[in-house]
Amino acid sequence: MDQREFEIQPNSDPNPSTTHVYHLALDIGGSLNKLVYFTKDDDHFVDGEAEISPRNTSEKSKGSRRNHPVLKGKLNFKKFETSKIDDCIDFIKTMKLHPGGSRQQENPGSQPISIKATGGGSYKYADPFKERLGINLDKEDEMDCLVAGANFLLEVVDREAYTYMGDQRQFVQIDQNDLYPYLLVNIGSGVSMIKVEGNGKFERVSGTSIGGGTFWGLGKLLTQCKSFDELLELSYQGNNKEVDMLVGDIYGGMDYAKIGLSSTAIASSFGKAMSDKKEREDYRPEDMARSLLRMISNNIGQISYLNALRFGLKRIFFGGFFIQRHPFTMDTLSVAVNFWSKGEAKAMFLRHEGFLGAVGAFMSSDKHGLKELLVKQEAQQSPTKLSFAVDKMNGQLDGELIGDESIECSVYAA
Amino acid sequence: MDQREFEIQPNSDPNPSTTHVYHLALDIGGSLNKLVYFTKDDDHFVDGEAEISPRNTSEKSKGSRRNHPVLKGKLNFKKFETSKIDDCIDFIKTMKLHPGGSRQQENPGSQPISIKATGGGSYKYADPFKERLGINLDKEDEMDCLVAGANFLLEVVDREAYTYMGDQRQFVQIDQNDLYPYLLVNIGSGVSMIKVEGNGKFERVSGTSIGGGTFWGLGKLLTQCKSFDELLELSYQGNNKEVDMLVGDIYGGMDYAKIGLSSTAIASSFGKAMSDKKEREDYRPEDMARSLLRMISNNIGQISYLNALRFGLKRIFFGGFFIQRHPFTMDTLSVAVNFWSKGEAKAMFLRHEGFLGAVGAFMSSDKHGLKELLVKQEAQQSPTKLSFAVDKMNGQLDGELIGDESIECSVYAA
Repeated sequence: MDQREFEIQPNSDPNPSTTHVYHLALDIGGSLNKLVYFTKDDDHFVDGEAEISPRNTSEKSKGSRRNHPVLKGKLNFKKFETSKIDDCIDFIKTMKLHPGGSRQQENPGSQPISIKATGGGSYKYADPFKERLGINLDKEDEMDCLVAGANFLLEVVDREAYTYMGDQRQFVQIDQNDLYPYLLVNIGSGVSMIKVEGNGKFERVSGTSIGGGTFWGLGKLLTQCKSFDELLELSYQGNNKEVDMLVGDIYGGMDYAKIGLSSTAIASSFGKAMSDKKEREDYRPEDMARSLLRMISNNIGQISYLNALRFGLKRIFFGGFFIQRHPFTMDTLSVAVNFWSKGEAKAMFLRHEGFLGAVGAFMSSDKHGLKELLVKQEAQQSPTKLSFAVDKMNGQLDGELIGDESIECSVYAA
Repeated sequence: MDQREFEIQPNSDPNPSTTHVYHLALDIGGSLNKLVYFTKDDDHFVDGEAEISPRNTSEKSKGSRRNHPVLKGKLNFKKFETSKIDDCIDFIKTMKLHPGGSRQQENPGSQPISIKATGGGSYKYADPFKERLGINLDKEDEMDCLVAGANFLLEVVDREAYTYMGDQRQFVQIDQNDLYPYLLVNIGSGVSMIKVEGNGKFERVSGTSIGGGTFWGLGKLLTQCKSFDELLELSYQGNNKEVDMLVGDIYGGMDYAKIGLSSTAIASSFGKAMSDKKEREDYRPEDMARSLLRMISNNIGQISYLNALRFGLKRIFFGGFFIQRHPFTMDTLSVAVNFWSKGEAKAMFLRHEGFLGAVGAFMSSDKHGLKELLVKQEAQQSPTKLSFAVDKMNGQLDGELIGDESIECSVYAA
């Protein structure tokens, strides 16, 4: 498989005309298609370490790459609905992100160009990418990419991880030497739970089919709302006690203190909807959305905890598009982990939660693609190994996270 | 608290006019109100052990009770919807099951009479029982009763437990000496998971709010059907692949073999309903009911397994009204336990699945109520300890189980 550099011609894209796109990778899931691409800041190569103060690098020997940052630029993040695959292809086309730009059309007989892709959609949607862009999707294993992406972000990016409970967000300083082992819970359409012990050292130990697709799918059936974001917004305004049967509803307002269940604990999700006095129209969409969100988040938190317990893991990192940095979702996951583990285990979140697989696919090119890219870019320079060092994260750190903050970084050749 | 014998006057009830009701107990849950009552076969006391071949007894020293079966009769089972509490009260009234029959009315000043009750409804509905029947509900802890009921049924009743997988039901011979420890999973409106190590020796270790109330409540919202039974029937005719997103739907028809997920495995429950090409009306109620049932059963099976694993328990007994001896539910629970445990743990079911708590409440009278009952009944006889021996279970063993088969049994006084 061949990875080539690709250039953005000056056009109407949001990046400055001096930006060059060097590389992109895809993670095509059941619901969303995630895109990560690297843009070079300008045409000049960076030399020395001026202005660069990397916190960490994915390479152990920092000395070896000090004098060779060969590219400075940004990692950019973008997502599309998988069902609208053409939107993504159009974006790639419009942005001229596809390898070779018009070159491929000029030399139709030349070797097909590949980009890294992961997720089930890299199989399902291989044809349209081939037909419309002349691109081969070079498939990488989904779990490999999730883990590689999470490890990269946690090891290299400052303030990537944070805790969230009781409306409080707190960034977590990750000590690289104390990162492993951890449980990675990726909540996409479905949920995967992966015990991670190091780079490339992991096992998918569990999962559940009650995930983001369930929230969106069931939520759409119940509330008729049109988008995932609309459903999330609805849930924010609802009250689950209108729909859920609480312990107090069964116990006549009392706690079931003997087993530690307060009167406000949920005994049965959607249990109040059993009532034959009310029809569907009598329940507010907001309340159903809220109840659904809580049911799913709670359940994922509980199963995550049980798996963390099983392998003695104290930290659970939650990623995947479902979370959307939604305060109620994160709070519910955190409270569930805290409740079931009696405070022993901790739930943490990743700022680029939705892009773990795509980042992993991007990083997988390190082995082949990026090296070649740099060979071409740097003319005769031939690095044997590449690494990324993150200079800074764009976007506010104190305000609301948006989850697709680009990351300024340098590529080093050793 | 005072327990009295109570008699049925000859009336139009389904029991023969010679039947005497001696004792009843209630388990009032979030959805269903379960009633267990003992009827004596005739007016004559049984002596000796003619016709009795008890398989087991709840008493260790069999010799001590051999010559004292003081009552022969039946344990009967009946359920009502909790929201229709008056139906239950009417039944008790019509059947003259309430202690003292008309005696209470004749002596309004006499000490109030109590019956054993458990479940949250024993708190919530204490007033109507007091007002309409003059009965105090003598509350017993819900978990105590669940465990006592399950232990009694498993220890004493022949062919109470069975496995169900791939359309095959198999009765399990329980060796009393090898019963403990086990995991009891009671699926009512919500779900309780209890590690049972012996009589009175247990701990509620987990639970989930995604239970029978969720199936009924969400199912009613989605399908508009009128009853739990109708919803179950619907689910029987549906196909979940119309609603669920399968691994093959994401992977373009392929398995995700590397992590052992076949193309037909559910990646995301209700994930297909995310599609913006279809509205709620485009999905068949049957398919949604099926998907819902599978989602809930699967999830309970998985969480049960994780808890069994945690405590090294090889047997999981599932009880509670949700199961309804529904083949698909039992099969899904069994397959989930089998899949996640790689065959290490086994799912089993109880014939009187819905009445564990009620049986436990009934048995709790052993300590006070039944003894007094017999003192009065037997005139001056004063037993120090009572036990039940089961003579036989009524109802077919080969055909369909109906779950409320009465149990013929003898009461012994030691």
